[in-house]
Amino acid sequence: MNLQAQYIVGFTDGEGCFHVSVSKQSSYKIGYQILPEFIVTQHKRDIKILYALKSYFKCGVVRHNNKNVYSYRVRKRDHLVNIIVPFFEKHTLKTLKNVDFRKFRKVLLLMEKSEHLNPVGFEKIMNILERKTKLLKIESDPSRNTMG
Amino acid sequence: MNLQAQYIVGFTDGEGCFHVSVSKQSSYKIGYQILPEFIVTQHKRDIKILYALKSYFKCGVVRHNNKNVYSYRVRKRDHLVNIIVPFFEKHTLKTLKNVDFRKFRKVLLLMEKSEHLNPVGFEKIMNILERKTKLLKIESDPSRNTMG
Repeated sequence: MNLQAQYIVGFTDGEGCFHVSVSKQSSYKIGYQILPEFIVTQHKRDIKILYALKSYFKCGVVRHNNKNVYSYRVRKRDHLVNIIVPFFEKHTLKTLKNVDFRKFRKVLLLMEKSEHLNPVGFEKIMNILERKTKLLKIESDPSRNTMG
Repeated sequence: MNLQAQYIVGFTDGEGCFHVSVSKQSSYKIGYQILPEFIVTQHKRDIKILYALKSYFKCGVVRHNNKNVYSYRVRKRDHLVNIIVPFFEKHTLKTLKNVDFRKFRKVLLLMEKSEHLNPVGFEKIMNILERKTKLLKIESDPSRNTMG
């Protein structure tokens, strides 16, 4: 099954999701892991379309969620930044999912600059996502910037 | 907002519905009204896409369903037969929604031959739709074929 770009835009406007999870991770300097992911979810009867997306983008995985539900998912930041984001920059989403995409893109670009690893950058990201998450911890030595 | 055909195919694979309702109507010869409709439903925040579909197909209406939900809907048989069906014949859906579409198309073509107004045709349509609806009434004069 070959997909065309406009088909993917339409299908993503319907079924896609640009999600950024923020979860407590005590091993992270900032106390949280920020995980952007592009997800398209389908009933297993249409799993072929998920594999067609994987094949089109040449990245990501198809995973079983629960019961009869499967997802095509891209989490690797390199693939998000260099494949998924440029695709949806070139082929604009037409629903308000484009607003989600633009926030998602902003968060990724900040993460590319490691901004999510310092309190100011973390705050910026929470503001973009309109979340009220407060910092849980900040390690005393601000020069340590290796985790996350 | 201009839509491309492949966008509409992708969006319909996600959000569209080829629905055939069968409802009791005592005024109909066969006792039922068969109503095929093409529907795309969205939250009101994305009502623009529904108007873009209306504008693309040059038929149908945008209607308020309930609360924040709106639909683009084509019910007029002439428009279904001459606009919607040819579009999705030319631009094939890629999910199993194409199975729904093919059933929908078959029902419409039978209706075009007025087959829904006689017991044999009605039975054929129920078989296509995999519904167990049984005839409620058949008028005594089979030459009367004006309602439906």
